[in-house]
Amino acid sequence: MMPHSSPASGTPPVMTVKPGDTIGILGGGQLARMLALAAARLGLKSHIYAPEAASPAFDVAAAHTIAEYEDETALARFAESVAVVTYEFENVPARTAAFLSERCPVRPDAAALAASQDRLVEKEFINSLGITTAPYAQVDDGGALARAVAVLGRPCILKARRFGYDGKGQALVREGSDIAGVFRSLRGAPAILEGFVPFLCEVSVVAARGEDGEFRAFDICENTHEHHILSTTIVPSRLPAETAREAVAIAKRIADALSYVGVITVEMFVTESVTENGPVHALVVNEIAPRVHNSGHWTIDGAVTSQFEQHVRAICGWPLGSTRRHGRIEMRNLIGDDVDRWAGLLREEGTCLHLYGKNAVRAGRKMGHVTRILPDE
Amino acid sequence: MMPHSSPASGTPPVMTVKPGDTIGILGGGQLARMLALAAARLGLKSHIYAPEAASPAFDVAAAHTIAEYEDETALARFAESVAVVTYEFENVPARTAAFLSERCPVRPDAAALAASQDRLVEKEFINSLGITTAPYAQVDDGGALARAVAVLGRPCILKARRFGYDGKGQALVREGSDIAGVFRSLRGAPAILEGFVPFLCEVSVVAARGEDGEFRAFDICENTHEHHILSTTIVPSRLPAETAREAVAIAKRIADALSYVGVITVEMFVTESVTENGPVHALVVNEIAPRVHNSGHWTIDGAVTSQFEQHVRAICGWPLGSTRRHGRIEMRNLIGDDVDRWAGLLREEGTCLHLYGKNAVRAGRKMGHVTRILPDE
Repeated sequence: MMPHSSPASGTPPVMTVKPGDTIGILGGGQLARMLALAAARLGLKSHIYAPEAASPAFDVAAAHTIAEYEDETALARFAESVAVVTYEFENVPARTAAFLSERCPVRPDAAALAASQDRLVEKEFINSLGITTAPYAQVDDGGALARAVAVLGRPCILKARRFGYDGKGQALVREGSDIAGVFRSLRGAPAILEGFVPFLCEVSVVAARGEDGEFRAFDICENTHEHHILSTTIVPSRLPAETAREAVAIAKRIADALSYVGVITVEMFVTESVTENGPVHALVVNEIAPRVHNSGHWTIDGAVTSQFEQHVRAICGWPLGSTRRHGRIEMRNLIGDDVDRWAGLLREEGTCLHLYGKNAVRAGRKMGHVTRILPDE
Repeated sequence: MMPHSSPASGTPPVMTVKPGDTIGILGGGQLARMLALAAARLGLKSHIYAPEAASPAFDVAAAHTIAEYEDETALARFAESVAVVTYEFENVPARTAAFLSERCPVRPDAAALAASQDRLVEKEFINSLGITTAPYAQVDDGGALARAVAVLGRPCILKARRFGYDGKGQALVREGSDIAGVFRSLRGAPAILEGFVPFLCEVSVVAARGEDGEFRAFDICENTHEHHILSTTIVPSRLPAETAREAVAIAKRIADALSYVGVITVEMFVTESVTENGPVHALVVNEIAPRVHNSGHWTIDGAVTSQFEQHVRAICGWPLGSTRRHGRIEMRNLIGDDVDRWAGLLREEGTCLHLYGKNAVRAGRKMGHVTRILPDE
């Protein structure tokens, strides 16, 4: 495995990955697809590794492997065929990452995966950097849950420590909720209880850190969710400039602590308290995603460099691109049968339509997104 | 084959091509590659048909066929697998286009190919619309060349009527040139002689016409060539607004006359004559390309809709996208070993690098391009 250069070293990284080389991507969904499209622009080939035969990323890649993440024969062959491996999701099994890391560079590396796969480890890591998270408690049994609810108060949210996304593996504890029933709903999965954060808005920082430690953030994304799934992103956020700078500084602290290489996304809640001197905003980190992120999809149409190209540049050891924005941005997800409106969306003046090539529409499934770029005010 | 709706019909076209469908592209070079990348964003698959085994477009397409353009078995199978066929180059053999047209829609259609494959037919067509071209004469033998040179004067340019690009199949006739020698250099190919146009600058109009007759042009591109190969494009051009409008009107007249569907590019010379009332500009059409064009590559990074997406929208019978520009544009081609500077170009702040994935660098070969977007003045 190639050593990471330290941010303080000052020597420019050797560009070991060259145009014409192949990057390996674990996972074959829309993020892998958009990564492969960005890699192609830069003259790179992609090799997608995914267990599902109908993976949307296969259609835009020079090569693909259909195999389980535990299939070491397939993994070894995959590693041999690529110059660097990355992934579109943080739930890459630790053994898979370790197996691949012995054979080729894996970026972001195992430390990034470890810090983001387990909600308990993630929160401990973030707090260890002096960054605020929601209050939380480890919950391994029903008794622990009852004690934690007593401490954190209601409402609060029980979350499986691993494999959650888009609200899956979560259960709300309200006034009157049956605590034992809530615990059973997670089917015994190790969990944490999170205290409720009364937030003004949700934002995310999509940023990249290069092999040489260079750090560049896109402008802060302000996000709204429906049914726990990202619905819209607007950029710039309505955050005061000082709070926006603080959000970027938090993301940088996290990326630096991990000697991170690639695009990282840090989701945050913005809270507001009223003081004698007016409202004061604070930032509470909700989650780290060691990858490109749905809230950064606007960068394809709305920034000089897309988050996908930025990730490819970083994992190849290449310099990061400009994050300059082309205007004010509105990004809307197309979830489930939203996508049936594709013909109307094509007619919407100034709207950029993105469809992910998924072969079946299902409720809650991300099928595409649209971006509108409006002139800066 | 689907009938073209007349521009005057007023009925919106039926969108017979749907996301998830496959578009067929004849040719596997960088234009096909960028078309396939644009199609993928819209949820379409691409099937590339090209004779060369190492075609850059194969790497980003769901399917490819390696076969000659005369192979009717392969062509028939290709036509069955796609919803619509388009092409990246105007030298598609007429028989190939006719064979495919009997089996599936081919857009732009045979009329567009016929109008642009033969320089003599092209010039006659353009002049028949009341649009100015360079003066020209048909040249089928050495005697005809001598007579034509006497009429058009020197310098003038002998051009093979067919299969020319990037200055190939051309010979300059200067003062003192040996006319018989110049004629022999074209190896007996049917040719035309073109009079020299003393131009102020070269521009191109990259525009699209939809199935319903809708017409949208990108802002005029101002081009410079080196060794007959496009070197740089700047947008907006320095043309006065009135001349720019006239250039767009010319492109529209040509597209309408052909009931054209897809992106069309019209290359023009801008001439200047000095009058009592100041300089007067006139436009002389040089060439029609029935396809996306190198001078429109800036639209990938610099416009709301790229020329590639615009072409895909048009050939699918979909509405055209916004041609709005994000700023002032400079596009530079990377020709031959220019591409060796890729690492430095990645470091150039605000520069978007595009590499075409070609496996060998050759002098005069288009290897990639870079786009810079500068704030509007």
